[in-house]
Amino acid sequence: MSHRSPTIVDVAARAGVSKSLVSMVLRDDPGVSPARRAAVLAAADELDYRPNRAAAILAGTRTRTVGVVVDDFRNPWFVPMLEGVRTALAPHGLRLTLADTRANAHLGTSPLDDLLALRVDGVVLAAEGSADTAVPPGTPVVVAGERATVPSGLDVVASDEAAGGRLATEHLLSLGHRHIVHVTGSGGPAAARRAAAVERMVAAGSAPLVYGSGATAESTGYEGTRRALVEHPETTAVFAANDVMAMGAIAAVRDAGLHVPEDVSVIGNDETPLASSPLVRLTTVDPHNDEVGRLAAERLVDLIGAPRGQGAPERTLVAPTLVVRSTTAPPRA
Amino acid sequence: MSHRSPTIVDVAARAGVSKSLVSMVLRDDPGVSPARRAAVLAAADELDYRPNRAAAILAGTRTRTVGVVVDDFRNPWFVPMLEGVRTALAPHGLRLTLADTRANAHLGTSPLDDLLALRVDGVVLAAEGSADTAVPPGTPVVVAGERATVPSGLDVVASDEAAGGRLATEHLLSLGHRHIVHVTGSGGPAAARRAAAVERMVAAGSAPLVYGSGATAESTGYEGTRRALVEHPETTAVFAANDVMAMGAIAAVRDAGLHVPEDVSVIGNDETPLASSPLVRLTTVDPHNDEVGRLAAERLVDLIGAPRGQGAPERTLVAPTLVVRSTTAPPRA
Repeated sequence: MSHRSPTIVDVAARAGVSKSLVSMVLRDDPGVSPARRAAVLAAADELDYRPNRAAAILAGTRTRTVGVVVDDFRNPWFVPMLEGVRTALAPHGLRLTLADTRANAHLGTSPLDDLLALRVDGVVLAAEGSADTAVPPGTPVVVAGERATVPSGLDVVASDEAAGGRLATEHLLSLGHRHIVHVTGSGGPAAARRAAAVERMVAAGSAPLVYGSGATAESTGYEGTRRALVEHPETTAVFAANDVMAMGAIAAVRDAGLHVPEDVSVIGNDETPLASSPLVRLTTVDPHNDEVGRLAAERLVDLIGAPRGQGAPERTLVAPTLVVRSTTAPPRA
Repeated sequence: MSHRSPTIVDVAARAGVSKSLVSMVLRDDPGVSPARRAAVLAAADELDYRPNRAAAILAGTRTRTVGVVVDDFRNPWFVPMLEGVRTALAPHGLRLTLADTRANAHLGTSPLDDLLALRVDGVVLAAEGSADTAVPPGTPVVVAGERATVPSGLDVVASDEAAGGRLATEHLLSLGHRHIVHVTGSGGPAAARRAAAVERMVAAGSAPLVYGSGATAESTGYEGTRRALVEHPETTAVFAANDVMAMGAIAAVRDAGLHVPEDVSVIGNDETPLASSPLVRLTTVDPHNDEVGRLAAERLVDLIGAPRGQGAPERTLVAPTLVVRSTTAPPRA
């Protein structure tokens, strides 16, 4: 017995039908008689012909569902991204379902595996992949968002986070701030924003102060800003790596008895629903995550229709824009 | 041709095999030869033999996944609920996947149908069902949360929202407030909280002022509070139907040039992550949605193991508690 993986040709030979008939069965074409369909499925079973896509198709019809992996439902950056995904899936009648990286942590399985177990047609990976994220060859997967770790061979659609970091820093510099603190955390988008912020601060002759470690969460933004204001009371502006961290930064400024933006300006990044909340009215960078989601899902739909060859993976960047609201102002004279 | 639904006996007759062999195929018993399996599947196909559970089993093994339907990812009430669901699923090695009622609106399908199409083993319905939500008989589904519309025959696990509404109102009354506004919106939890709030205000001899219409969203909380403060400037306290509406209420108080809680106290409901945010520090009611999720998922696991008979559906209530933070205080003397 050969160790070579069986192909569609082997299945056709075993079933005594043409290769194109096997293809018709695999794509669930209704024009195949039940008897011939059964013969093809039996041959596929006997040969253990189960590459990923075929397994889903053999198991019945395709699910016509796209899975989306998000990292943490507490950070609503994914909300506009999902809107974009939906926009792209709508014309194709594709459903979407979600898994988050926390949801199944107890099982020790990856959310990608969890979705593939549901036989989704493809996955938008909008979360930081772990080092051991393995994407089965031929499985349609597109990464949405800038990630520290991208499983090899995958296309990436992301906002240009370095450009976003520059936009935020330039905004503070252009208002006249020279004592700027950047509050950051873990993960790919934060790393790109941090590098850009430091580079721009150095270029402007401003000492690059960076605070914060751990998750890019509100508590990290709070604690980083609190420490920065103690150690550098001359601080007049904080660039937080994302909107929830900016909420923490604003709270830390207030708890220090100072006002935003009169004493300390705060800018975030993500243009989440929180940023436009009338309680926050946050100046932020819009990474256009709706556009990221839309382009990632469109790419995924293409891959579902025609799996990619061996070419280099594609990388698509979306240009961010600045959204000025009420949390930034010139420093006190 | 009969209009009677085909049974396992019809499939066996059509395939020329025994009923027990059909059963073996349906439960994916590996002891069936590929050829006989194919014959059974072909017969099932020809007869369109696809009752719900059987369809899942025909398609392969069960997915070992539970689906959760949530209403709107913008309102993070579901975050603790999901934690509870995960806690209950962990010992059973069950995965979870999510769908929201908005995600597939473009397809005109219900999120419940979307999840069932993925052949999940069961569903926690943590969203308002539409009037036409149809649960296929024998499908394990449990409703989590108080709902205006519950598909017939389903078990419900919910926080005691009436008790929550009373807790919030009593808290404001006990602080000495007599000019209380309730800001509300659509949906089952809001209706229960509203009825309880009005009842307690009337019992306390306070005129029950109710504002707000439409979604229980931040904008509704903002606009309802804004109008209330214009039409009833004597208002000293606002009970918002949930935490995001309370965020809108706080913003409306501030935009009216007033302070929370010195001029106007604000209490929410849900104990979302926003409530404990250092930027908000919201007094609220904790419905213990983690416990709601845990109990609902435990009930679901039971149903997956042994589908319920014809008995009356069960209703389980979780007692809420009050969480006092910084947005409520006695009225100015």
